[in-house]
Amino acid sequence: MICELISVGTELLLGNIVNTNTQFLAEKCALLGLSMYHQVTVGDNRERLSEAVRTALKRADVVILTGGLGPTEDDMTKEVCAEVMGFSLVEDAHTRERIEDYFKNSIYKDITDNNWKQAISPEGARVLDNENGTAPGLILEKNGKLCVLLPGPPNEMIPLFMGQVYPYLQKLRPEVIRSQMVKICGVGESQVEDKLLDMIDRQTNPTIATYAKTGEVHLRVTAKARSEEEAERLIKPVVKEIKKRFGDHIYSMKEGETLEMAVVRLLKKHELTVTTAESCTGGLLAARLVNVPGVSDVFREGFITYANRSKRKILDVSKSTLKKYGAVSEQTAKEMATGGVFATDADVCVAITGLAGPDGGTEEKPVGLVYIACYLREKVRVERYQFKGDRNKIREQSVVKALDLLRRSILEEER
Amino acid sequence: MICELISVGTELLLGNIVNTNTQFLAEKCALLGLSMYHQVTVGDNRERLSEAVRTALKRADVVILTGGLGPTEDDMTKEVCAEVMGFSLVEDAHTRERIEDYFKNSIYKDITDNNWKQAISPEGARVLDNENGTAPGLILEKNGKLCVLLPGPPNEMIPLFMGQVYPYLQKLRPEVIRSQMVKICGVGESQVEDKLLDMIDRQTNPTIATYAKTGEVHLRVTAKARSEEEAERLIKPVVKEIKKRFGDHIYSMKEGETLEMAVVRLLKKHELTVTTAESCTGGLLAARLVNVPGVSDVFREGFITYANRSKRKILDVSKSTLKKYGAVSEQTAKEMATGGVFATDADVCVAITGLAGPDGGTEEKPVGLVYIACYLREKVRVERYQFKGDRNKIREQSVVKALDLLRRSILEEER
Repeated sequence: MICELISVGTELLLGNIVNTNTQFLAEKCALLGLSMYHQVTVGDNRERLSEAVRTALKRADVVILTGGLGPTEDDMTKEVCAEVMGFSLVEDAHTRERIEDYFKNSIYKDITDNNWKQAISPEGARVLDNENGTAPGLILEKNGKLCVLLPGPPNEMIPLFMGQVYPYLQKLRPEVIRSQMVKICGVGESQVEDKLLDMIDRQTNPTIATYAKTGEVHLRVTAKARSEEEAERLIKPVVKEIKKRFGDHIYSMKEGETLEMAVVRLLKKHELTVTTAESCTGGLLAARLVNVPGVSDVFREGFITYANRSKRKILDVSKSTLKKYGAVSEQTAKEMATGGVFATDADVCVAITGLAGPDGGTEEKPVGLVYIACYLREKVRVERYQFKGDRNKIREQSVVKALDLLRRSILEEER
Repeated sequence: MICELISVGTELLLGNIVNTNTQFLAEKCALLGLSMYHQVTVGDNRERLSEAVRTALKRADVVILTGGLGPTEDDMTKEVCAEVMGFSLVEDAHTRERIEDYFKNSIYKDITDNNWKQAISPEGARVLDNENGTAPGLILEKNGKLCVLLPGPPNEMIPLFMGQVYPYLQKLRPEVIRSQMVKICGVGESQVEDKLLDMIDRQTNPTIATYAKTGEVHLRVTAKARSEEEAERLIKPVVKEIKKRFGDHIYSMKEGETLEMAVVRLLKKHELTVTTAESCTGGLLAARLVNVPGVSDVFREGFITYANRSKRKILDVSKSTLKKYGAVSEQTAKEMATGGVFATDADVCVAITGLAGPDGGTEEKPVGLVYIACYLREKVRVERYQFKGDRNKIREQSVVKALDLLRRSILEEER
């Protein structure tokens, strides 16, 4: 089954916003086993939208449109799709009621007339209730072709798609599709692909897809089968082989678990508390940890020591270390991590010191040089990295490596 | 002049990555005064890419393609465009030399044969040197139509476009286009649009475009004219009127200046140093400040006090305040900001305490409730916010409001 995406909105053509809907829908369609060959963006223009829908319906079985369902004159996705597919428009009493309810509980008391436009629906279409806005989603079906219409704002589109469209599309497929996520860090993307080359080359079912993130690589193993059991039977040996090849570099097998979530889970399991001592990352590491709900069991406080004086005063880094080796050195990183543990009652401290640039680099210590240290059970591990990219990129990579060092330190200690 | 964008890459069709190139290029094309009606994404497939290029050349004057210029078999953008436009392919000696140089300075010592593919160029095409990779950009021109080919990775595409394509396209236009950025924070998007409604309604030249960011709204005033002077004369009164309407809510007039940059500039101007005391944001505020190169003049250290005990120990928040009012309260925020200044030798301290959720909310103190305080010259300003969204969204909004409170506090004090 072939699927095509059409994004509707002049704000996309003007570059006012990044189109994240397309990435989200493309990933989910791949997961559903749908083939995708085209993604198209057009503005709020009747003629061009109409042509885009006609073309898409010729080359695809399922066309998913986002945007242009709102109350204004500019919004015409519904009208255009109805016209192209030959549906007449009628008022949907259920949607009218929902819009009334929505405004009853809203701070906007006056319902302007154009809002009722959103209760008009192609006759015979499946109306998808929108819990987060007034424009419902719609599914139009005719002659084996499907048009799915979704509102543009991601906070409305995503719940609508996942709650009502995904299961609907899933049922249309004769086979069952199951997938297993494998999340890897500490190995570069090309290295991961190298290590999997033989498996990727001979893959047919299951398939292995790689997704590169900053400092991480995610693998999705997807199998098609006639039953859930069969799909899982197909996935199992592939995942087992991947586990064998990457070992501890795999930090999670769960779709929704981030690296910081896995680290917090590990800290909780081993009843360890952690603190942070950051220079160039300036709080990004702590912020990643605090991003995890319930982190308070393992994280109480952290320090940003950007100036040398702060490193001395707060973390007790010695003056002679800073003078002899400099702030960006293995020795300073070690003393920062040690100092962090002694300044608090935490069991572990992760410290980061580096040159994020753009200025301040030398031949000996170029921009991108970062030392990361982890103190745990009277032992300090230090790692040296030379990152590429701009200030932000260097800082982001440092944080991922710091989280990974923390993770590996705990795993090694507990072995 | 009409422009169309074609993104090439199967990874986009699979949703492996978000297409940020399109937003970047669309915004820049709008700035150049080019009209855009279509954005298209196709995979690494000869037939479909060829059809997309043919279609685009029919409906647009300038077609910008990103991706598919690499060394592998899959990369075929150059070959397809040359074929469609009727160019023959020859080796470009200059590019061959550049590839040799690139690998000489690289950690990869062996140049595999397929890398030389990148030295092949359509005869008569303009070759754009790529400082950040081996695939050069290309401009193909024939019969008044233009194909611009750029590599897919943003760190290669952006410098190539800005350095060589943007000025090239600028010269093609008969009129001069100038624009002025106005960056606003502390006012919601719909409020900004309300306040500008009359101006937007009657706009023809200059135009006002609004770009919503988290907690900020950016306005771009763009004028077309026959000379630079005329364009600037058109822009001036519009910008003056906008300044009158938004006053201190305008934090910057510079394209590349972020809110944190503006705040650091202000701190430097008034010779003030700042420290941070963060609870729910967990270091995000400090990280935003440290994102500014040269921040060391005004920022030395910051604290993350997530646990109540840490607030007491590090910031000297009183036990009775925490007991009586709770950690998320005006009183605690005040004491955190005051404590931050006294724990360091900074002149100013910004403190954030709030409920980022998803759990822990009550009727009295719901998730999203955040107090932000700023201590400056023995005066503490506190603001209360009720944010919407998930944990991350609440934290991000808090940081923007904290930076803005810091900014406004300094402005008010210095008045």
